[in-house]
Amino acid sequence: MHYREEFLKDLRADIDEVDKQMVALLARRKELVARVGKIKNEHGLPVYLPEREAQLVAARRAEAERAGLSPDMMEDVLRRVMRESYASEGEHGFKCTKPGAGPVVVVGGRGGMGRMFVRHFQQSGYQVRILETEDWPRAGELFDGAELVLVSVPINLTVRVIERMEGLLSPHTVLADVTSTKSDPVETMMRVHRGPVLGLHPMFGPTSKGFAKQVVVYCDARHGERCGWILEQFRLWGADLLPATVDEHDGMMAIVQAMRHFATFVYGTHLHEENVNLEDVLDFSSPIYRLELGMVGRLFAQDPELYADIIFNSERGPRLARRYMERFQEALVMLEEGRRDEFVAHFREVKEWFGDLGRRFLQESSFMLERMHEKHGKRRDRPHPNAVGQDASKQWPGFD
Amino acid sequence: MHYREEFLKDLRADIDEVDKQMVALLARRKELVARVGKIKNEHGLPVYLPEREAQLVAARRAEAERAGLSPDMMEDVLRRVMRESYASEGEHGFKCTKPGAGPVVVVGGRGGMGRMFVRHFQQSGYQVRILETEDWPRAGELFDGAELVLVSVPINLTVRVIERMEGLLSPHTVLADVTSTKSDPVETMMRVHRGPVLGLHPMFGPTSKGFAKQVVVYCDARHGERCGWILEQFRLWGADLLPATVDEHDGMMAIVQAMRHFATFVYGTHLHEENVNLEDVLDFSSPIYRLELGMVGRLFAQDPELYADIIFNSERGPRLARRYMERFQEALVMLEEGRRDEFVAHFREVKEWFGDLGRRFLQESSFMLERMHEKHGKRRDRPHPNAVGQDASKQWPGFD
Repeated sequence: MHYREEFLKDLRADIDEVDKQMVALLARRKELVARVGKIKNEHGLPVYLPEREAQLVAARRAEAERAGLSPDMMEDVLRRVMRESYASEGEHGFKCTKPGAGPVVVVGGRGGMGRMFVRHFQQSGYQVRILETEDWPRAGELFDGAELVLVSVPINLTVRVIERMEGLLSPHTVLADVTSTKSDPVETMMRVHRGPVLGLHPMFGPTSKGFAKQVVVYCDARHGERCGWILEQFRLWGADLLPATVDEHDGMMAIVQAMRHFATFVYGTHLHEENVNLEDVLDFSSPIYRLELGMVGRLFAQDPELYADIIFNSERGPRLARRYMERFQEALVMLEEGRRDEFVAHFREVKEWFGDLGRRFLQESSFMLERMHEKHGKRRDRPHPNAVGQDASKQWPGFD
Repeated sequence: MHYREEFLKDLRADIDEVDKQMVALLARRKELVARVGKIKNEHGLPVYLPEREAQLVAARRAEAERAGLSPDMMEDVLRRVMRESYASEGEHGFKCTKPGAGPVVVVGGRGGMGRMFVRHFQQSGYQVRILETEDWPRAGELFDGAELVLVSVPINLTVRVIERMEGLLSPHTVLADVTSTKSDPVETMMRVHRGPVLGLHPMFGPTSKGFAKQVVVYCDARHGERCGWILEQFRLWGADLLPATVDEHDGMMAIVQAMRHFATFVYGTHLHEENVNLEDVLDFSSPIYRLELGMVGRLFAQDPELYADIIFNSERGPRLARRYMERFQEALVMLEEGRRDEFVAHFREVKEWFGDLGRRFLQESSFMLERMHEKHGKRRDRPHPNAVGQDASKQWPGFD
């Protein structure tokens, strides 16, 4: 017995040693990746190269399999390590796609997203000017000779800010915004400016580590041929560029932002008014419900004004939400009347409509739930109640 | 230029070499962990030891930090590797917590969850008997001398199956079920059986790799002191045991299962009836909406009967869903009437109610979203539409 415990201790020391070597290897990898980043930058190669990544992942999966390891585990580990690399590749700056360009003016450059753009344009060798509320008296001076004026202000201010620029911009300047709705901002930019106009929507928040693998939607409104260098620059930063019409973009955002955030808001209100004990709910949550709760809590941990902007500025959001509610009502009556067969029939119909995507989603979300499960530590301890409530003080011998 | 490209190739070869060494290290780690598992089994130590895990993670984080690496990255990598270890630790079997026990009978032992129980009890040295539909004529024989009869059949059959056991069980046998509702099954077990009764709800599906870190709810209904060995056995398998009353359990399940699955069902129906193009929606999805879609698609990729059972067998689910709908309606009118200030006020109220948990959820879900983002490959290519729809054929020189 004693001998065995010693043996266990030795094995654990060996595992610790293996882990230490892994730390050393990862540090060496980081150093190599930094050198690759430097060369990529000098050659003007994008941070994110999908082909190289796919190749690398496939090779490591095969090696893992040969070594008797799970290829999925190897891929997960590798992807986690690579994500960290992307974040550090920009440290050495980026190649400039328009050498000799005039200054880039970021309106709202001290806000969350604004700062991110300022940093990236600076790291790419552009002269960057910031225009904040207090700088309007010298706006003409700041806009003078600008290659690009980028509007990065809260949604509900965007139109007013753009209107204020009327007559201040040269027709050579590209005017662009980064608001999450596109119809009003693009229309206003077209009205106040005669030069190139580009609507942008970076689909990520200021807490992201950079542009690598992030989707940026762009709406080419006027003289797109004179905006190419901007998109090319984003691509070097690692962005995944998605072209769209203003209409298409706003329709999609009603679904993926306005309606979704609204439903999450209602669900949080619901839990609050049910007055459930959230810690108890967490104890009883499967990984999938834990994730659901996480997404609700996440919304309420953020800024109410931001969500009010997104929800109340969507033209189509409310109509979409009303149709959803009508469907909810119909389904609820079906549930209340116990029409189980009808439920199953509807289920099969939607299942068919999802088709192969449903299976892909199942796979993807299983991956996520496993991650959730890894992360989830031990539950807090709870008192031991008696199942049918007769005698809560009873203790179980041999078990606690 | 040419020289630089050679250099890049060399660096990539070095990275590949580092990765290969990592594969070798992980294979060595796996071997060590298998030996630990064998000793744990002989000593009757649980698969999952929260303290050892916390210690190990803390040590590696500190080492990573000293090596100039992100401690979060190191922790993520380690947790992923450790999860794989848990799955393999049971390979050498588990210590038996009731040596000399009579047979364990698993009713429905050829179903998904049934098979998992059969395998684990066998790996722990118990004699296991399976009772399936066709075996009822010799049920008396199978139940004879049983230490435990475990009912693992679909929800809508559970009560009928238990009723069929009336008069067939010895008062020495423990009767337990694993259904996801507890009130009807426990009540029925108490009625048909005079011996110890234990309601169980393993909060995971048959696709899980094992019990490690999974929550198992238990309702001690009668003679809990004679069921301790079962729970202790689950603990050795790695389960996280959660005591609850029948009432508490079913109330929570109305929230975390019935109502949740119902809302997801309605959302899938909604997307279907809106007739959106799911591939387009995916293109425009931020990681959080991708996750949302994943969870919807996941439901529909599974068995309609299973979800019908969960939703239609919940007593409190429909009432809960109705209250939710009423809240949705109220909030929708607020949105339609543009009462933005009211929205912000409600938001702040719920935010306060979530309190620290909101921030914890934000952190946890950010972790999940980063994983989502890692996994997400390149989008499929889309044609380039003109933003305002005038001239879709226009090409941009220097950019595609």
